Amino acid sequence: MSADSPPLRTEQPPFTGRTTKEWQAADAAHFLHPFTDHQALATKGVRVITRGEGVYVWDSDGQRILDAMSGLWCVNVGYGQEALIEAATQQMRTLPYYNAFFQTTTPAATALAERLAARTPAQFRHVFFCGSGSEANDTVIRLVRRYWDVMGQAQRKVIVSRLNAYHGSTMAAASLGGMAAMHAQGDLPIPGIVHIDQPHYWAHREGAAKDLGREEFGLLAAHWLEEKILAIGADKVAAFIGEPVQGAGGVIVPPSTYWPEIQRICDRHGILLVSDEVVCGFGRTGRWWGCEAFGSKPDLITFAKGVTSGYVPLGGVMVGERMARVLIEQGGEFEHGYTYSGHPVACAVGLANLDVIERQDLVTRVREDTGPYLAQQLAQLMEHPMVGEVQSCGLMAAVQLCRNVPLREAFAPEIAIGMVCRKHCFDNGLVMRAVGDRMIVAPPLVITRAQIDEMFGLVRQALDRTHAEAHAAGWLAR
Amino acid sequence: MSADSPPLRTEQPPFTGRTTKEWQAADAAHFLHPFTDHQALATKGVRVITRGEGVYVWDSDGQRILDAMSGLWCVNVGYGQEALIEAATQQMRTLPYYNAFFQTTTPAATALAERLAARTPAQFRHVFFCGSGSEANDTVIRLVRRYWDVMGQAQRKVIVSRLNAYHGSTMAAASLGGMAAMHAQGDLPIPGIVHIDQPHYWAHREGAAKDLGREEFGLLAAHWLEEKILAIGADKVAAFIGEPVQGAGGVIVPPSTYWPEIQRICDRHGILLVSDEVVCGFGRTGRWWGCEAFGSKPDLITFAKGVTSGYVPLGGVMVGERMARVLIEQGGEFEHGYTYSGHPVACAVGLANLDVIERQDLVTRVREDTGPYLAQQLAQLMEHPMVGEVQSCGLMAAVQLCRNVPLREAFAPEIAIGMVCRKHCFDNGLVMRAVGDRMIVAPPLVITRAQIDEMFGLVRQALDRTHAEAHAAGWLAR
Ligand SMILES: Cc1ncc(COP(=O)(O)O)c(C=O)c1O
Ligand SMILES: Cc1ncc(COP(=O)(O)O)c(C=O)c1O
Repeated sequence: MSADSPPLRTEQPPFTGRTTKEWQAADAAHFLHPFTDHQALATKGVRVITRGEGVYVWDSDGQRILDAMSGLWCVNVGYGQEALIEAATQQMRTLPYYNAFFQTTTPAATALAERLAARTPAQFRHVFFCGSGSEANDTVIRLVRRYWDVMGQAQRKVIVSRLNAYHGSTMAAASLGGMAAMHAQGDLPIPGIVHIDQPHYWAHREGAAKDLGREEFGLLAAHWLEEKILAIGADKVAAFIGEPVQGAGGVIVPPSTYWPEIQRICDRHGILLVSDEVVCGFGRTGRWWGCEAFGSKPDLITFAKGVTSGYVPLGGVMVGERMARVLIEQGGEFEHGYTYSGHPVACAVGLANLDVIERQDLVTRVREDTGPYLAQQLAQLMEHPMVGEVQSCGLMAAVQLCRNVPLREAFAPEIAIGMVCRKHCFDNGLVMRAVGDRMIVAPPLVITRAQIDEMFGLVRQALDRTHAEAHAAGWLAR
Repeated sequence: MSADSPPLRTEQPPFTGRTTKEWQAADAAHFLHPFTDHQALATKGVRVITRGEGVYVWDSDGQRILDAMSGLWCVNVGYGQEALIEAATQQMRTLPYYNAFFQTTTPAATALAERLAARTPAQFRHVFFCGSGSEANDTVIRLVRRYWDVMGQAQRKVIVSRLNAYHGSTMAAASLGGMAAMHAQGDLPIPGIVHIDQPHYWAHREGAAKDLGREEFGLLAAHWLEEKILAIGADKVAAFIGEPVQGAGGVIVPPSTYWPEIQRICDRHGILLVSDEVVCGFGRTGRWWGCEAFGSKPDLITFAKGVTSGYVPLGGVMVGERMARVLIEQGGEFEHGYTYSGHPVACAVGLANLDVIERQDLVTRVREDTGPYLAQQLAQLMEHPMVGEVQSCGLMAAVQLCRNVPLREAFAPEIAIGMVCRKHCFDNGLVMRAVGDRMIVAPPLVITRAQIDEMFGLVRQALDRTHAEAHAAGWLAR
């Protein structure tokens, strides 16, 4: 259409003027979704999510759905939290934007920086803001290399990450990530980033973990880092990055031996440790930070998602004092930043979000009440004939599907059993994510015990229907 | 501080409880600003911007400041636009977040995609959303390489950009950019990105542009692209990227011959053309898009900033039909995306922002009224003894400072005359940006003629004070 033609229509929230079919047609015609096959989506028709309240969302056909993924691991305080809405509205009315480039700040940005310093482990007093988890992890590479440069060790450039890690989708963040499908598009990884294997007991059950207990396997997996460091030369390695619990990789909860050993290895070789807390941060694990849950003492923490519960985009990097002091006192200008670094509306929402988490004591509730309750419910799924493993940490959990439980045999990949199960979930009013054959949940931290019961009722229903379909189709082991 | 200690304090917008000194202390202790020397900033003390209305902001000491930079080139509709605030509030109340990954959308995201398709040149019908200009340009690299891959020309990988371009701060976006200071930190550029020189008549005045008219020089500068393509091998080049008018580089308005010739060269060699409209988009040039103002027909447009006037972070890539069809019909899943791709609150604000621009007919106003008026006022600055060149396009303008106008002699770099001038601006209640010795403005598109008069009054005052200081210090030519 010509750029000077009049607008098609002006519409406002709550956008009630179109039917589902109309939205689907407009969507297929114009919206390129993240991580999507658009031909397939157009054939099927997109689902239109129109409303949210607490742990539920509704679609344009009026179906209520229990959102067991918190949007996308972000809506920690649930939908419809008035305090966050109020903070955003007031900040927009007062000052909807100002930059932090021109030797200027806004009260919201400075106050959130201060508040985060108070809410993170003792080694952190400074924050660098950006707009997403990807930008936060991307920032880490420049920050870490700059630090070593100023320290007179410019040769320390290599960053070690892990296969099946997810650190975002910019070229550099996707390079840090260990997703093969992403690396295959766009010539990734960029130089200076290498990967070791993940502490994934189930995935290694027929290989490295065979005949090992979980805790022994945790030590082995940590030693893969040391092997890699020695192969590269310790004096060339800048940092190691990892998610305390791999989220998008399938809620891979590492053995308890893993992170303390990783910490010892980093210390031994003088390598910086980066904890990607984009998913684990802000209470998800039952601690404020995943590194606290697993016993590491990182130099950098990256965060996003839970910092605003997703109401307004925000991300950032907590910079530990040993790095911050060097960069501030000897680094001069760090040539890096984003228009929306310290966005006042995002920061005001971040402050209100912290208020909600603290006032409702959500972190303690996850650790002492809802987390253990979820673990208990989850354990009962082990009786299901298609469940090979369950794992959880705080309010994130995984259910590993397999075709033959005693033999721990996987379904044929072309069946895509996870997607089959996900469809049954959605059709039944539950959002559960599929990562390969692993079904995962990470509900809002405000979820109640009764809602956890409801969630597991829906999970069981979906598993049963998936099982019935698998049985009918002859996908199961005889 | 320990992570389990109580919060320092809970504060809400408008954050009136602290003095400037208290904010400065908290800021220095915790907030790492973008592109900042923190030691220097802490010594001086940050300026705290607390409130905005129309084209003005106020600081914590109550000083009113005319914001001639629209925040950071983004607050196109000015501060305090109730329609945007209302849209954000309503959307947050209805649905503050949902993802577009799970074969799902939200009405706001789909409606904005449709609206942008209608507001961009005819070749565009699809949009990929992300959260910033950096993410948009970063996305371009993966998108362009993916396209050539699917087209069976995987060897087309190289992207040509320009020196002194600004495309953002992720590793890949900073690589596309041509800022030497950024490349020096973090081992940039990443492979596969090369740079040609910029169409900057003033910078080349003693070199390539010597004895050439502006339009002749424009053709010469365009041919640098062809030389580079031939040197690399045309079949290895994927795309060329450029800002229609370089913004952060100093409002470098190219000769009118430049872009049409760039277009011919891209066409001749079958190379994709990417127009970075993060600054130029949404009316800044007096057209909806800079490519329309300068006569190119890009395959991709990247945008951010003006799409929401900065009220909520949003960015994206318009994907032209020749690419979109290939990617949709033959590409399968594009393995790329961000949690906040299609954020409903950002998209709702985007729709309201387009309503304001359209209802107030701001683009026409810039083209026919305020843009020409600003150009006229600007021309009069050429009488000033320190102004070597002025340039403008719509509502963006540059004033080139020099120590000897007839000889077009530059100040010694160590004087940093731009920063001297910027300080006089700020002290007088005007935000003007310094890029080297070039002072730039890009006021909100709602600025009135009377406010343009006021702005130029302040600019003249700052120039006069800078001149007086330069004279007293002996920096001027005798
Ligand atoms: C652990 C982790 N890091 C980084 C990211 C990237 O965040 P974003 O999508 O906001 O760029 C994600 C997103 O899911 C994530 O799970
Ligand atoms: C032309 C251009 N492209 C991209 C960007 C990067 O945008 P962001 O800071 O939102 O990442 C900017 C920022 O100023 C810009 O001016």
